[in-house]
Amino acid sequence: MSLDFLKSALTVNGSHMSTEEFLEWLQKRKASIGVKITKIPFAEMNHWYFEDETQNLRHSSGKFFSIEGIEVETNLGVKPRWTQPIINQNEIGYLGILAKKFDGVLHFLMQCKVEPGNINFVQLSPTLQATKSNYSQVHKGNPPLYLEYFLKNNRSKYKVLLDQLQSEQGARFLKKRNRNIILEVFEDIPLEDDFCWLTLGQIHTLLALDNVINMDTRTVISGIPFGSYGDEVIQFYNVISALFSDDTEYQAGMLYSAVENDNHLHSSAEIISWFTELKAQYELTVKRIPLADLDEWTITETEIAHNEGKYFKVIGVESEISNREVSSWTQPIVESVQHGLIAFVVKRINGVYHFLVQAKLEAGNLDVLEMAPTVQCLTGNYRKAGAEFVPPFLDFVLDSIKESDGILYRSFQSEEGGRFYKEQNENVIIEAPEDFPEDVPENYTWMTLNQLKMFIRFNNYLNIQARSLISVIRFNRHD
Amino acid sequence: MSLDFLKSALTVNGSHMSTEEFLEWLQKRKASIGVKITKIPFAEMNHWYFEDETQNLRHSSGKFFSIEGIEVETNLGVKPRWTQPIINQNEIGYLGILAKKFDGVLHFLMQCKVEPGNINFVQLSPTLQATKSNYSQVHKGNPPLYLEYFLKNNRSKYKVLLDQLQSEQGARFLKKRNRNIILEVFEDIPLEDDFCWLTLGQIHTLLALDNVINMDTRTVISGIPFGSYGDEVIQFYNVISALFSDDTEYQAGMLYSAVENDNHLHSSAEIISWFTELKAQYELTVKRIPLADLDEWTITETEIAHNEGKYFKVIGVESEISNREVSSWTQPIVESVQHGLIAFVVKRINGVYHFLVQAKLEAGNLDVLEMAPTVQCLTGNYRKAGAEFVPPFLDFVLDSIKESDGILYRSFQSEEGGRFYKEQNENVIIEAPEDFPEDVPENYTWMTLNQLKMFIRFNNYLNIQARSLISVIRFNRHD
Repeated sequence: MSLDFLKSALTVNGSHMSTEEFLEWLQKRKASIGVKITKIPFAEMNHWYFEDETQNLRHSSGKFFSIEGIEVETNLGVKPRWTQPIINQNEIGYLGILAKKFDGVLHFLMQCKVEPGNINFVQLSPTLQATKSNYSQVHKGNPPLYLEYFLKNNRSKYKVLLDQLQSEQGARFLKKRNRNIILEVFEDIPLEDDFCWLTLGQIHTLLALDNVINMDTRTVISGIPFGSYGDEVIQFYNVISALFSDDTEYQAGMLYSAVENDNHLHSSAEIISWFTELKAQYELTVKRIPLADLDEWTITETEIAHNEGKYFKVIGVESEISNREVSSWTQPIVESVQHGLIAFVVKRINGVYHFLVQAKLEAGNLDVLEMAPTVQCLTGNYRKAGAEFVPPFLDFVLDSIKESDGILYRSFQSEEGGRFYKEQNENVIIEAPEDFPEDVPENYTWMTLNQLKMFIRFNNYLNIQARSLISVIRFNRHD
Repeated sequence: MSLDFLKSALTVNGSHMSTEEFLEWLQKRKASIGVKITKIPFAEMNHWYFEDETQNLRHSSGKFFSIEGIEVETNLGVKPRWTQPIINQNEIGYLGILAKKFDGVLHFLMQCKVEPGNINFVQLSPTLQATKSNYSQVHKGNPPLYLEYFLKNNRSKYKVLLDQLQSEQGARFLKKRNRNIILEVFEDIPLEDDFCWLTLGQIHTLLALDNVINMDTRTVISGIPFGSYGDEVIQFYNVISALFSDDTEYQAGMLYSAVENDNHLHSSAEIISWFTELKAQYELTVKRIPLADLDEWTITETEIAHNEGKYFKVIGVESEISNREVSSWTQPIVESVQHGLIAFVVKRINGVYHFLVQAKLEAGNLDVLEMAPTVQCLTGNYRKAGAEFVPPFLDFVLDSIKESDGILYRSFQSEEGGRFYKEQNENVIIEAPEDFPEDVPENYTWMTLNQLKMFIRFNNYLNIQARSLISVIRFNRHD
């Protein structure tokens, strides 16, 4: 199974279309889809209303999601208490990809999908991207395409390659998770408009571009394992690495980090102990409160916003889209006031790439802490006097970006466009120099890519930002 | 590391004392400890009070634990909604065992500990059993013995053999967890009164007796891994199994199940998918409510009880104990109205013992479902007409017990005596006959012991009842 995934990751020429053909096709699809997104006052939203006493923002069906308040208390970090709005969507949606072998190589069925918050309007999403409300037909539209393959009664006909629960943004969602699933089909299946087959290598190649592959795709592919070869790993690595020339040392190094079995700085038991220590030490208490009761937030006719303009706001949008199951609708959406920065610092330790992982507390976390990138923050001038808090390693990351030092990967990638309005994060992977210290603060540790992938299997270990950065790591060579 | 554990599990003659000597010593210790436990009205408890409006039962320090109410809604099972009292103790305690090699074999430092709810008063507990309130000295007593070894700043001197967060009873505690930790020390350490060194084999032998090894010990040792031998596993197994004669086929079979690597019915990816499916399908919503607002429960001067006498009640006790850090105190405690039954059905599939595991929802679960024994319930006459619900496989288990058919293990073991008043469960492991169906209902699956131990590593997978049953499995021969 892992070998099938790896073969697909190393295949940069798809059987269905080349990456260049894909980009042309994407442009044509975009041109064929009519999109109009308009910011509107809350009062103009259909079926959405502010509940009388609480001022919570809800849908009249009681489904989809609501915007509510939470009161957060914790003994970690610089703020022991705060209140904030949060998206409450207590249901598990599907992020599903169908996979099929063409010419012996796994291809993934990807969709050109329009979401109201998407930069570029159209991004490449999983085959199926459906909330429970979607697939249980609350909105009375057509059922999502390819839904039937994922339904429980049909699934036994296919091979489940991956099927995990993964967390959403803990700073925005209250304990929200989605089911990340990849099914291999063996029969011919119809290719609908707006869908195409790509190899994992092609998806990785496209991840070098800004805002083409959506967050839902990134989280699903982040969980793909490569590391279960047992003894063959070294021989296998030798074969693969021979494919690479010197100038692609990065890919070969990442591949080795993804398949290593016993060449890590810390054993998995040590990492579990590190995480146990931190979870025992730090507490997170979250109480749901009415949106009306937030301390520093104000609801106006057009937005729910922080009084000092910090963090994010909730606004209303009207979407008119011509290729979607429901062609026109209104909804609340979250708009960030700044773009964010997520960065992994990596370092060769014992010759193997190790990732500097942060244990991070976010208000919506199911279990206090999740493993996050080395740096994860909103941007802004952090070095200015009066900044709330300068995260560790931020200076190193910003300097590296400024000097183009050790940058292995850099792009802008979007948050999910169904809930986030044109929100993007700069995604960066930086190779630290030899003298970068291996001793790190207590809530950081070093892990190989294979170890990170091991923790992804067990739900609520890696946060969505860490998974996004892992998804962009490629082993293939660009053509 | 695993090999050290296994060697200890196979050693039935401890260097410090033989198991017979231990039993004599235990009797002497019991005789030397004065214990008086008295049921008292709530009004006679010191520092405990019912809060004015909510009637929640609290300690005046705000620490320790409180008895509160919850309202539970779920789409799994026969009851879609109920209210109940629950223990709220939002802190992570230590269950810590010090280990040290004598004559090359790991021994564990065990404590004769008195708890108010203990059947027999004295049971064998981990070296350190301490709530955060304990070790942060809320009660102004002496610090627990051996605490200093486990404190963060000292721990680097020792080898962490195991360090995991594990859940407590989900039907009684709201999301409570403890830190299960085993540290190997290399220096000489003082042996305090009431403490002794035992091998894992000796502890397993003592687990054949009723109510000697307490729940805290059982949960810690349940996480001990044996299965990380890689390729040596088969050769190793051959060596070990030669130690066994035919009449100890059970032990050899369990050992093989604990170390197998690829001889299981379902891959770990398939099991994760099974669990993902169920977590996506079933919802659990728990709302904290005042104890005063429970539907079918009444607070009297002496108990918080269900109106029909079902489930459990909360009572007050006064404890006078002569060897404990605080020698006299009062507290609320939970008294079950019946003893419980927990049973694993196991079956040889492809020649390897597989455990029939249930995905079980309990109100206090952090994450909807945990993996539980095949049968876990309060006893009573389940077959009588009008029973609320007859759990699957209960008939098979009760018949097997009645006919003494395929019983591999059977004993009574206690719940933790600090919170539970003389509560015990019948612990049973039953080998199913060849014609026992491998097809099981959707919320059951088959797993090897090694697979169960893999999931134990990642918190909140196996519930405490499953872990209790796993802890009793021995590979050694009784003398």
